Amino acid sequence: MSRRDMGRAAAIRPLRDVPGWDDEADVVVVGLGAAGACGALAARSVDADVLALERASGGGGTSAMSTGQIYLGGGTPIQEKCGFEDSPEEMYKYLMASCGPGEDEPKIRLFCDDCVEHFHWLVAQGVPFKETFYGDGSYTPTDDCLSYSGSELAWPYRDIAMPAPRGHTVQQESIEAGGMLMRRLLEAVERSGTRIQVDTLCETLVVDEERRVVGVVAKVEGVVRHYRARGGVVLAAGGFINNREMVDRYAPLLRKCKMRLACDGDDGRGIRMGMGAGAEAMRMETASIVLPFTVPKGLIRGVMVNRQGQRFINEDAYQTVVGEAALHAQGGQVYLILDDAIFERPFPPTEIAAVGETFEELERELGAPEGSLQQTLELYNRHAERGEDPVFHKDSPYVVPLVTPPFAALDYTTDTAIWAVFTMGGLRTTTEGEALTPDGEVITGLYAAGRTTSGLAAQGYSSGLSLADGTFFGRRAGRAAAARARDQERGR
Amino acid sequence: MSRRDMGRAAAIRPLRDVPGWDDEADVVVVGLGAAGACGALAARSVDADVLALERASGGGGTSAMSTGQIYLGGGTPIQEKCGFEDSPEEMYKYLMASCGPGEDEPKIRLFCDDCVEHFHWLVAQGVPFKETFYGDGSYTPTDDCLSYSGSELAWPYRDIAMPAPRGHTVQQESIEAGGMLMRRLLEAVERSGTRIQVDTLCETLVVDEERRVVGVVAKVEGVVRHYRARGGVVLAAGGFINNREMVDRYAPLLRKCKMRLACDGDDGRGIRMGMGAGAEAMRMETASIVLPFTVPKGLIRGVMVNRQGQRFINEDAYQTVVGEAALHAQGGQVYLILDDAIFERPFPPTEIAAVGETFEELERELGAPEGSLQQTLELYNRHAERGEDPVFHKDSPYVVPLVTPPFAALDYTTDTAIWAVFTMGGLRTTTEGEALTPDGEVITGLYAAGRTTSGLAAQGYSSGLSLADGTFFGRRAGRAAAARARDQERGR
Repeated sequence: MSRRDMGRAAAIRPLRDVPGWDDEADVVVVGLGAAGACGALAARSVDADVLALERASGGGGTSAMSTGQIYLGGGTPIQEKCGFEDSPEEMYKYLMASCGPGEDEPKIRLFCDDCVEHFHWLVAQGVPFKETFYGDGSYTPTDDCLSYSGSELAWPYRDIAMPAPRGHTVQQESIEAGGMLMRRLLEAVERSGTRIQVDTLCETLVVDEERRVVGVVAKVEGVVRHYRARGGVVLAAGGFINNREMVDRYAPLLRKCKMRLACDGDDGRGIRMGMGAGAEAMRMETASIVLPFTVPKGLIRGVMVNRQGQRFINEDAYQTVVGEAALHAQGGQVYLILDDAIFERPFPPTEIAAVGETFEELERELGAPEGSLQQTLELYNRHAERGEDPVFHKDSPYVVPLVTPPFAALDYTTDTAIWAVFTMGGLRTTTEGEALTPDGEVITGLYAAGRTTSGLAAQGYSSGLSLADGTFFGRRAGRAAAARARDQERGR
Repeated sequence: MSRRDMGRAAAIRPLRDVPGWDDEADVVVVGLGAAGACGALAARSVDADVLALERASGGGGTSAMSTGQIYLGGGTPIQEKCGFEDSPEEMYKYLMASCGPGEDEPKIRLFCDDCVEHFHWLVAQGVPFKETFYGDGSYTPTDDCLSYSGSELAWPYRDIAMPAPRGHTVQQESIEAGGMLMRRLLEAVERSGTRIQVDTLCETLVVDEERRVVGVVAKVEGVVRHYRARGGVVLAAGGFINNREMVDRYAPLLRKCKMRLACDGDDGRGIRMGMGAGAEAMRMETASIVLPFTVPKGLIRGVMVNRQGQRFINEDAYQTVVGEAALHAQGGQVYLILDDAIFERPFPPTEIAAVGETFEELERELGAPEGSLQQTLELYNRHAERGEDPVFHKDSPYVVPLVTPPFAALDYTTDTAIWAVFTMGGLRTTTEGEALTPDGEVITGLYAAGRTTSGLAAQGYSSGLSLADGTFFGRRAGRAAAARARDQERGR
């Protein structure tokens, strides 16, 4: 296969070309990250025979590398314990406002309504959450749980929906929370009686003459194997940020971003397998684009400017929302202006693009158009003296005048800073995880979940939404595939 | 069919369900706008039997409603006559820079290389062009020909490629040039011996057991008819801006724009037919977004601001480039600031959102954040006194200080002004017009051209590119379908 072919759908294997089945199950799960694990658990919970195929030598996928934060709300026990009021309705309002236009309303509706139940289910699988509030951001260095992980407190969302922290980080010190999440889910999968087969690279789907998906073709130690799925195949094989051809084809701007939040498996294979069987891929241009400038949090008091020396967003919008705006509308050419009073070294680190004793000097050193940055900062300061930001509506705690020289511009251009991205586009699915053709027909026997699918959000990513998507809709996909297996058995 | 279904692919008709053929031809062309007409002409030129099916009572489509401007260059006789130097290479550089990221490089390469030949071909079909230079814009109220119809003279393109006017408007007084183009092309189609059948609404494709496209199903006066295509079907049925469900699904931002540059036929049917047969639709979010603020041309001396009172682009970028930036990054909330010295009534007209004797008064009346618009205009004026715009690089002829009160803000918000849009996304095709599946396979017997396809540009539309795309690649699609018919006949 040429590199060029890697950007394309994977041609199906017709059933008539399958020499025989090497194994079979009610439900075959492709990929054992969060979505696949929850799919397997849900299918096993109704006694389906489940075979989970994982390309790596163990499960976990990108979920295990994540910060272990899951976007949950609507009034979870932890939200209540920590004294935050939330409801499915407020959560719905926030997601509808922040994830669109183009948001998946039926998925958002269902997810908000059933979110508290989903929290309890995760706990029942052994996923630990501490009943504590941490603060905000996508990353909790302690073992605390709750954070504002989106733009809930930022304009305009704070006026649209009652803000509540919804990022639920799994209990574990430091960056290992994603690892803990997957350790516990995989232990549950093992306990459940799911048959797990690792080092198995699924390559394409087996399709019968009625265009139903009836199995998968995989390679195990170089040998081609065929696995029959009596009820269905659940594609849960991650996104495509590590497939250069697909990124060029569908989301070329992402090429500018240095860091791919992904394991090797995020090479788009699951999406390509689905497309090969006739499933529609949608929103393939969308991504979570993290511009990580908000640690330490005091940096939000800085002023983010583009290369014209202008502000373009409220700096307290969530880092993914800032990242999206900065990449799409500003070409990834942005800087964060600080004065000496609020200066702190950012984490992750980036370079200092310019310093100056005056705004004029800073502007000159930065190469911004003469007068542009000066006036931006003067106007900002003028309003900031009253704690106000009538231009972009940054919340007053973050609005302080920058008056203490020297002034510095942190370099957040894509050339220098670490922008962290993963893809959000993928197969179009129903709320039950059924894959759909472009004409809206369900592809019998094909289910998908997690970043192999397009999920709740079309844009405006809040941290934790992918693990939420994957775990919540992964369960539904596994359950639906199991139900179909049962129906098949009963001869329906 | 429910309204919801209208947003989806059209299910194919299996060959085995076709009761019999009502007619047949080597090449069946669906839609008689510019792309279909050129497809028919090209197929007839190699003696294929061509049946053209048109849903309206006569050909023309949206092409006939257009301004009749075709983007052509590389050194056409008219460019030469008018004293403009151009070459395929400079044209290529401009299109590659302005149409990306995501531009279709093979199509751009071929189009630039063969553009002069294409000009001669159009003339040979009877399309008249006067050997005169008009100026710029998408619309030529006189019968003159040549205009700058893109951002060739604007930063940064003027530094990337040697600017040349490439908009070639068909010779005809006033807005009838599109009508003249289609009158002449349709006369040529009739002369060519193409069999034209109007009032025929094609609904879906007939596909055989090998998934080859072998015909179309249409309705004629309420009766279902089946037309066999021995060589292939050429879908040239326009875009989808008049399909509300498709717009919601693929390009929801366009819903904000008041004016759809389209005939009724632009309801996405051609795209849906292709998708039903397994073709991939791509770049479905893209559009030509005209923000028509540049007539009279002196208005370019105004200052375009967003609702934060900031500039966001060089006002001499082409009106579609300004429109794209204004819609995507500014939510369609933009205003054009003028002083009394440069004030003129715009065409098309729009409202005056605010007036003021001072910048401060203007800003207050506009409801812009206090100080924001004032400083934008002060900085603009400061540089403009030297004829410079170091912030956004507007070209110096358009850079004059705004110093004569009263000042006015023309309302170019999507709520008020006439933004004119049509869709640019569609079927993925090869340079020969062959429709492709998501896995990059050619769908045997299926060809497409014009706005039913995704063409040269992924963004940065220059006026005339759609007629260029449609006529140039329409020819290639018709020729390829005819060649296949000949191969079939020879039993290959």
